[in-house]
Amino acid sequence: MNLTDYIESHRNEHLAELKQFLKIPSVSTKAENKADVERAAQWVANKLRGSFSHVEVIPTKMHPLVYAESLHDASKPTVLFYGHYDVQPPEPLELWTSPAFEPTERNGNLYCRGSVDDKGQVHIHLAAFEALHKTLGKLPINVKVLIEGEEEVGSESLYEFVKGNKPKLKADALVVSDTGMLGPGVPSVTYGLRGLNYYQMEISGPAQDLHSGVFGGAVPNPLTVLCELFAKMHDKNFHVTVPGFYDDVAALSKAERKALNSLPWKAKDFKKTVGAPELCGEKGFSIVEQVWCRPTFELNGLWGGYMGEGAKTVIPAKAWAKFSTRLVPDQDPDRIAKQVEKYIRNLLPNTVECTMFETLSKGKPWVAPFTHPYFKAAQRALEHGFGKKAVFIREGGSIPFVTDMHDTFKVPCILMGFGLPDENAHAPDEHISLENYFGGIKAVANFYQDLGTV
Amino acid sequence: MNLTDYIESHRNEHLAELKQFLKIPSVSTKAENKADVERAAQWVANKLRGSFSHVEVIPTKMHPLVYAESLHDASKPTVLFYGHYDVQPPEPLELWTSPAFEPTERNGNLYCRGSVDDKGQVHIHLAAFEALHKTLGKLPINVKVLIEGEEEVGSESLYEFVKGNKPKLKADALVVSDTGMLGPGVPSVTYGLRGLNYYQMEISGPAQDLHSGVFGGAVPNPLTVLCELFAKMHDKNFHVTVPGFYDDVAALSKAERKALNSLPWKAKDFKKTVGAPELCGEKGFSIVEQVWCRPTFELNGLWGGYMGEGAKTVIPAKAWAKFSTRLVPDQDPDRIAKQVEKYIRNLLPNTVECTMFETLSKGKPWVAPFTHPYFKAAQRALEHGFGKKAVFIREGGSIPFVTDMHDTFKVPCILMGFGLPDENAHAPDEHISLENYFGGIKAVANFYQDLGTV
Repeated sequence: MNLTDYIESHRNEHLAELKQFLKIPSVSTKAENKADVERAAQWVANKLRGSFSHVEVIPTKMHPLVYAESLHDASKPTVLFYGHYDVQPPEPLELWTSPAFEPTERNGNLYCRGSVDDKGQVHIHLAAFEALHKTLGKLPINVKVLIEGEEEVGSESLYEFVKGNKPKLKADALVVSDTGMLGPGVPSVTYGLRGLNYYQMEISGPAQDLHSGVFGGAVPNPLTVLCELFAKMHDKNFHVTVPGFYDDVAALSKAERKALNSLPWKAKDFKKTVGAPELCGEKGFSIVEQVWCRPTFELNGLWGGYMGEGAKTVIPAKAWAKFSTRLVPDQDPDRIAKQVEKYIRNLLPNTVECTMFETLSKGKPWVAPFTHPYFKAAQRALEHGFGKKAVFIREGGSIPFVTDMHDTFKVPCILMGFGLPDENAHAPDEHISLENYFGGIKAVANFYQDLGTV
Repeated sequence: MNLTDYIESHRNEHLAELKQFLKIPSVSTKAENKADVERAAQWVANKLRGSFSHVEVIPTKMHPLVYAESLHDASKPTVLFYGHYDVQPPEPLELWTSPAFEPTERNGNLYCRGSVDDKGQVHIHLAAFEALHKTLGKLPINVKVLIEGEEEVGSESLYEFVKGNKPKLKADALVVSDTGMLGPGVPSVTYGLRGLNYYQMEISGPAQDLHSGVFGGAVPNPLTVLCELFAKMHDKNFHVTVPGFYDDVAALSKAERKALNSLPWKAKDFKKTVGAPELCGEKGFSIVEQVWCRPTFELNGLWGGYMGEGAKTVIPAKAWAKFSTRLVPDQDPDRIAKQVEKYIRNLLPNTVECTMFETLSKGKPWVAPFTHPYFKAAQRALEHGFGKKAVFIREGGSIPFVTDMHDTFKVPCILMGFGLPDENAHAPDEHISLENYFGGIKAVANFYQDLGTV
């Protein structure tokens, strides 16, 4: 059976297997899911054992890494495929149409936490490896696989491992599917990502919650203080006000701006996906530039006081916030983290104390020229899988590992993503288009096969 | 046995009975506690049956009212005693030293939700009625009692009842113990209260939670919008910026300001109770004026986005706030509610929709001259109970029923409160001083006895 026939005739098996994988609630940020995360790692390892001679589940301080390799022909190139088997928390649960960890097909999509970010996309590669191995008897090139379980929480164990295992991970290219397509029917190769710093803080005013009648009018309210603080983070043009924040931002070339703004993409569709009454972004930049090429300051969570039913007349003792900065070349995550913390501490009034400020994770941005022949191979493979010409795009999300591998090995990083912007990665009703899932398997298998002949 | 001896010799019985009462988690705002609230009403009714010939538990749309009367001597005055048997929610539970609904004695205090607000203070009167009835064979004056179960949620059923039962409630004076003493060892009669409007709102931006990488930089963030909104509610002098907010605020007389600022009260003690690094209040007014005589705008709860462990890179679809305005004479709650809603709706940018704005409750402020002989009787009774001269104070909290009764019957409202400012009404570790509880029983019993001879 040839490769295409194998893939076509195994659609049901692949989909059933993906559903098994998705059912495991591998939420890396929650202590209560630690055993599930471990189970997901074992599931990946077992699957890899079908196509790889060497497979390890590597324990770490937090969640295990899965590593596999098939190095059987020194005359062929070696690629490192990277992905993650951990997922975002499913909350708020009540907004899911079908339960977050019950894979459900609806309208040509598969709904489940992790379906598009990133277990579904990892499985595209696992299915492609299987198809290549079954039809060729071996993989067409040398392949290393590294699947981590901490992508959604900062990848600390991954970096620790990478630091001590550089020779083991060396390859001629890095391959990742954790990004998206520009739109339905537009297969895409991503050549730029934003970096991400994530912060959390707690401020304390009164020693304990106070009665707003007895004390109101003479005491600081930590919620009001947080509001006044975060109201200062953007100016009227939606520039971030952190001093020095834009100092290292590399200007976009005219050619790149022109290319990005000419992509087959409609603001109307973006606006529809977002669903807000109006959009809101940095003045002087197009939407594509705002989300792919400009840094941001974003509140991800903020809370304090009474959040229950009815009324409680309380002045809260404390208030909390979680927030993040997306970074673009050539911003330095360490420098930005220092600037943000300093600015925020300086802005706080002396009526409250900053009782906690933590930078939970830091990650560098990445952008690379797409001139290497592997990029062309990726474009051809995508055209094969989808029957449409692939475009080159940047993306607003963050995969710090890509930057890290690029900086370490100076090799091309091929980001072939199969998600769509409205597929709710990180939100309720996350899903993947079944057409893109099956097209992805075809494209990826062809890509690996093609590299064997480049 | 005379009255004083009876009270002294029944300290243990009274305290044991109060603990029974406090154990019932009569949280009026929570649907899950509906049966407990009903149980608390029955408990009060049963206790009243010992001293009153007529006792009713009156069903309402929400929580029952308890009414009792003993009208046995037309030559004596009639007082209406009002209190409430419902309590605030106990959350956050983890901040209680002993469980919120297990009455616990520590350092001369009794800790429990409701101990000071208001079940403990209601029980002071129930114990006083019992002592008077047991030692005199009957109450020394005519007494009506009305104890409600919705004080912490806006008293809607109470007002409904009052509207239809004015003759039933008519009395020569209203007596309430739901306020505080100026400080330890300073028994106090309160002659002014602030009013309270309570609001909640929801704003919606994106149609659902969005990935802050894929979308961040081009979409409105409801949390940021709420921050920007509430940062505008105060100017740099901490004046509330709602247009017209101060239009109807009656100026304080020089004499009253002088009297209030001469009370035996220390800013140092207030600051210690609050425990914040610095205080914060409206410029041009003393702390006493800020919390008793000036209106406020206060955030009571605000939330949105991810509030769990670790990181989630989300732009939330919605954000929520609960907030309140404390009102002073002659502000009109209806007018203020309209001004606040209009101002907030006008301030919201067109990037979000205000998907909910509710005024949960409205309550008028109250202030009255303390010239009636009953005020002098209260002062004498407090001196009897505490061995110290009582002072006349205002208070920052709200008891809308007082205003209502005052407006309806034009009779003196005698507010003898036995709470202390640091007893955490509405907060974890709520407690009442046992000295004030026992002193209160003595004072209140003497007050009712004295009114029989005025």
